[in-house]
Amino acid sequence: MRQKIGILGATGMVGQRFIQLLENHPWFEVAWLAASDRSSGKAYGEAVRWKLDTPLPERIAKMPVSPAVPSGAPRVIFAALDADIAREMEPAFAAAGCAVISNSSAFRMNEDVPLVIPEVNAEHLALVERQSWRKESGGYIVTNPNCSAIGLVLALKPIVERFGIEAIFVSTMQAVSGAGYPGVASLDILGNVVPYIKNEEEKMEAETLKLLGRLRGSAVEPLAAKMSAHCNRVAVEDGHTESVSIQLAKKATREELIAAWAEFAPLAGKDLPTAPSQPVEFVTAEDRPQPRLDRMRGNGMAATVGRLRPCGLLDWKFTVLSHNTIRGAAGAALLNAELLVSLGKLEPVPVPA
Amino acid sequence: MRQKIGILGATGMVGQRFIQLLENHPWFEVAWLAASDRSSGKAYGEAVRWKLDTPLPERIAKMPVSPAVPSGAPRVIFAALDADIAREMEPAFAAAGCAVISNSSAFRMNEDVPLVIPEVNAEHLALVERQSWRKESGGYIVTNPNCSAIGLVLALKPIVERFGIEAIFVSTMQAVSGAGYPGVASLDILGNVVPYIKNEEEKMEAETLKLLGRLRGSAVEPLAAKMSAHCNRVAVEDGHTESVSIQLAKKATREELIAAWAEFAPLAGKDLPTAPSQPVEFVTAEDRPQPRLDRMRGNGMAATVGRLRPCGLLDWKFTVLSHNTIRGAAGAALLNAELLVSLGKLEPVPVPA
Amino acid sequence: MRQKIGILGATGMVGQRFIQLLENHPWFEVAWLAASDRSSGKAYGEAVRWKLDTPLPERIAKMPVSPAVPSGAPRVIFAALDADIAREMEPAFAAAGCAVISNSSAFRMNEDVPLVIPEVNAEHLALVERQSWRKESGGYIVTNPNCSAIGLVLALKPIVERFGIEAIFVSTMQAVSGAGYPGVASLDILGNVVPYIKNEEEKMEAETLKLLGRLRGSAVEPLAAKMSAHCNRVAVEDGHTESVSIQLAKKATREELIAAWAEFAPLAGKDLPTAPSQPVEFVTAEDRPQPRLDRMRGNGMAATVGRLRPCGLLDWKFTVLSHNTIRGAAGAALLNAELLVSLGKLEPVPVPA
Amino acid sequence: MRQKIGILGATGMVGQRFIQLLENHPWFEVAWLAASDRSSGKAYGEAVRWKLDTPLPERIAKMPVSPAVPSGAPRVIFAALDADIAREMEPAFAAAGCAVISNSSAFRMNEDVPLVIPEVNAEHLALVERQSWRKESGGYIVTNPNCSAIGLVLALKPIVERFGIEAIFVSTMQAVSGAGYPGVASLDILGNVVPYIKNEEEKMEAETLKLLGRLRGSAVEPLAAKMSAHCNRVAVEDGHTESVSIQLAKKATREELIAAWAEFAPLAGKDLPTAPSQPVEFVTAEDRPQPRLDRMRGNGMAATVGRLRPCGLLDWKFTVLSHNTIRGAAGAALLNAELLVSLGKLEPVPVPA
Repeated sequence: MRQKIGILGATGMVGQRFIQLLENHPWFEVAWLAASDRSSGKAYGEAVRWKLDTPLPERIAKMPVSPAVPSGAPRVIFAALDADIAREMEPAFAAAGCAVISNSSAFRMNEDVPLVIPEVNAEHLALVERQSWRKESGGYIVTNPNCSAIGLVLALKPIVERFGIEAIFVSTMQAVSGAGYPGVASLDILGNVVPYIKNEEEKMEAETLKLLGRLRGSAVEPLAAKMSAHCNRVAVEDGHTESVSIQLAKKATREELIAAWAEFAPLAGKDLPTAPSQPVEFVTAEDRPQPRLDRMRGNGMAATVGRLRPCGLLDWKFTVLSHNTIRGAAGAALLNAELLVSLGKLEPVPVPA
Repeated sequence: MRQKIGILGATGMVGQRFIQLLENHPWFEVAWLAASDRSSGKAYGEAVRWKLDTPLPERIAKMPVSPAVPSGAPRVIFAALDADIAREMEPAFAAAGCAVISNSSAFRMNEDVPLVIPEVNAEHLALVERQSWRKESGGYIVTNPNCSAIGLVLALKPIVERFGIEAIFVSTMQAVSGAGYPGVASLDILGNVVPYIKNEEEKMEAETLKLLGRLRGSAVEPLAAKMSAHCNRVAVEDGHTESVSIQLAKKATREELIAAWAEFAPLAGKDLPTAPSQPVEFVTAEDRPQPRLDRMRGNGMAATVGRLRPCGLLDWKFTVLSHNTIRGAAGAALLNAELLVSLGKLEPVPVPA
Repeated sequence: MRQKIGILGATGMVGQRFIQLLENHPWFEVAWLAASDRSSGKAYGEAVRWKLDTPLPERIAKMPVSPAVPSGAPRVIFAALDADIAREMEPAFAAAGCAVISNSSAFRMNEDVPLVIPEVNAEHLALVERQSWRKESGGYIVTNPNCSAIGLVLALKPIVERFGIEAIFVSTMQAVSGAGYPGVASLDILGNVVPYIKNEEEKMEAETLKLLGRLRGSAVEPLAAKMSAHCNRVAVEDGHTESVSIQLAKKATREELIAAWAEFAPLAGKDLPTAPSQPVEFVTAEDRPQPRLDRMRGNGMAATVGRLRPCGLLDWKFTVLSHNTIRGAAGAALLNAELLVSLGKLEPVPVPA
Repeated sequence: MRQKIGILGATGMVGQRFIQLLENHPWFEVAWLAASDRSSGKAYGEAVRWKLDTPLPERIAKMPVSPAVPSGAPRVIFAALDADIAREMEPAFAAAGCAVISNSSAFRMNEDVPLVIPEVNAEHLALVERQSWRKESGGYIVTNPNCSAIGLVLALKPIVERFGIEAIFVSTMQAVSGAGYPGVASLDILGNVVPYIKNEEEKMEAETLKLLGRLRGSAVEPLAAKMSAHCNRVAVEDGHTESVSIQLAKKATREELIAAWAEFAPLAGKDLPTAPSQPVEFVTAEDRPQPRLDRMRGNGMAATVGRLRPCGLLDWKFTVLSHNTIRGAAGAALLNAELLVSLGKLEPVPVPA
């Protein structure tokens, strides 16, 4: 028996990815879909403009789109809402007793909301116990980071562990799917670069340090590193590429850094269905990673690192790439949900005997 | 009477830009075109695959392509050769008494070869007097920088002057035209980013510091700043966009930086035909500069700066954009030639009374 | 003294092109700008998201955006409105005595509305005398065709004249700027083709036959040819490329067709500022015309034809290209206005003595 | 026990697709790889620039690249060679007794060479018996069509069967991968259309009629239809989109045409591993098929048809799309090989009991 889940914001780009990734999922079953009032009442297949290159599953196409209210919704909710809407809606579902696995930025930086990448900071999940909803109804909100932060943090985590990091410089080249649909106008991006994504640099900097921070008592202490992000949009459909420079606390050789990535396997024993066997893949070809060729490593859940070389300003520089709507959004939330299952925090226990 | 000039490598992308920019030039007249043996003997119009969006001038189309040897060539040569070929060919022309205005990287870092942006370091031209060719035949080589360095250096120069710069971080998103024709394969760049351009980071770092350096006696002392460049290729036809962070020697406010750019007009009195009235244009829109919208400022000769904001790691960060085959290549060489004319170093004096 | 004109829909893509093309126009002066209620009252520079690669003229940036009502508007109005809005607004301006030079599809196929390309069917302008507004207030509506029809019709007109055309097949590859801003979502067009543009095939077929039709008495008799259009959207910023096959009434050789295009110069004596000296340019290179290289011929006002070869189904086939927002929209309307001036239909006579 | 096969031209784009599609193939095992002299002797992983988005299988990466000579090659050869090289090399392998399953155009139109799409004209395979090599050594050449013809022919076949076709008009928008690597220069296709592909229109017309022709005695009589093709290159990575108009011999309704496609399943009983369950998928959304969304239907082996509507010139028009390097190249050859196995023409019988 699979755990029934619902999707809030089911017709958007991330909502569609949830449906794609949950098709044939061993633990979860899509049982409820909600979207804006405009879609509510229609069959999902009529309400959605399906933009993925795998077919919309027939069962899902026939499901009705429900109103976005907790009544009648399952206890486990994947939320793919814009921040403004999430700010109102997610607490309503948490208050009604739902586990809200959110991809929105609305509550990521709240002190009592865990911002989690399972391979990086699973222990931050403890923050949910501080949430008032948790105490009252059992519901809670768990978030995953911004699509630009997640690949970077995967690449940095094993280095932080072994050598410490004091300074982080990153300049991104982000795919248009990160802006949703219709999102970026074609006239803005064909043959062009847009050196600005609203609030992205602020989110990327704050989330990275929180993710790499430590749980002290019942609070997260962010990583004490200096950080600067430049965020740019480029003419790529999927896959965020990032140029990164870092200052280490303790010197490391090239081989030691590569070993840190190769040996990084914190979920190895857990057997979560969506977890990549190798969260960070290091590639040696001089011109990789590239979004078109590398974004699907680990079924879109691995971060790919390449071009490791000394930096003239900090210690080392490299390029990291990850799939922004799989590892950077729907897949991130799904992996968080799987982690919660493995910890017994998603009830009723959905894993078959 | 206009000065007759020749073009070495006339059929390539930069060679074509020379022809485009020299059409109707008040001081120079294209009188000689040379290319590889394969083209030699043909009419230029037959030898070239013209890739610019203005028509190939009819007079030029009918000109014969000469063998790439100094005999019969004019005394002033614009050279648009690959580095390997330039390494052999440019000295031959200099030895034969030609002023070789070169866009190649072959000799840029030589101690006695000036690497010049007229607005930045015109005084470096004095290096030509150290060249052996100069002493023997009157010929010499003058170079302009790599297309990725030139916009950056224009943006940095007025800041170096007023505040000093101690550290430079730059991550580029470079257009495909920088790789010539056929250059980048479409399968490598459609929907993609290539985080690698051979030798580009090394050139960009070394050239930037030389350009911003001072002439001490008869040698250039590079700027004593730390620098790190990440170079990336993106799906843009023309225009290099660069994310930049800098550390100043002396603190400056946002207003002081903007004033430094606005007041930067070192060639103001000189009246060089190709010089932009404002070499660095600062734009305030939050999502600019963009290559498609801003690369043609100053007829492709201005650098556009925007998104000035504090940096979490160094002092300030911003984005700079410039046209890589105009300001970054053919226009750069042409402006060098105009500067040489204004200094009386291109004989016979070509400016009409 | 230049004729004062107004622009309806001044902030859209076509409105911006009007402003760009009218900068320094010898006959017309932009004196009034109107846009939606949201923009009304603001300075134009604040209301617009300027998307062209030449700077927004400062004088225009400071002009206020007026409400879109005839009161206070000049007598000559360039209208760049969506069809739904045009349907209500253009008659209001015509009724108020304005000459409405419209780029909208709303009234193009009305029996008493001229649909005009000056080089093709200037005589259709006579239809304005049938318009009720003309009789009552002096005002009228004149339209130019859809961006996909205009290049095709320019290419067909000299052939219709000399040989007659019985059947027309066309398959288009249209630029994204034809859909306005934001228009086509980048996720829909990057690495993609969309084989559908709403209502485009119907408009293209009907307008082509009306444009090539004859004025019989006071009505236009469409060309009696069979026609079929396939309309597709491709990842091109500007410039519509069209694959065309035609059946002639009277056989013609390749040389005769090329001569028909070369000798096509119906406005030669008229000296309209925006008219290209050669409305149809034939190119011989086997892989031309191409939008990036050929759309700016004749300052964006010429149609370029190439690849003329026998067709296995009809008589001949070829490719035609034209700039969709210059020749296909703002430039088309501007040329219509210039034609009206030359015919004395735009009062007061604006041409200086 | 799987049949060992070899790949000629293994490092090219089609060669890479062969390797990708043959990984885990139930009937065939890659046992031999050959490429140009430059690659010969290296490990495949060093010789190839792998451009697919799935990883190069490790076993294949370690395989040596053999010289392209029959000695030591398996009896079954997939050939992915340029036509010029194929013209010399394929006969050498056929003469040595190999079954050469060729993707090249070199021999497609030869009278005694079958040009085959299994769902369309499997009976044409009988032509191999006329080949001199077959008689002498048992070897032969079997070809699949050009990537632009294959989707079209799949869409036309069920209509030819039920209603007959008298005239075919097609205008293509072809992906860059069809030109191999490096193939189309990015400067030629970014923001552009190239309305020319060398020899493509001639191949597409001739091959379509041969494929739809009948075997009369020992010769193929091409379909007696008039045909005209316009071939264009667009900025798409994979997937050829084609605008098609057809004239039927016998009138058909929209429903009858859709039924013809839906019921087209000529290989249904055969159980070939690479055959799509539905070779032609009809989609009803008004803006489909699109390459990015539809090319992977049937694992890249189905043709997708949409936008069926009456044609103003012929009877019906529609859009067809297929994946050009899977169904249009490597997958086509692989399916031909599977068909040969099922007919007992690839010895030794490779299918396990």
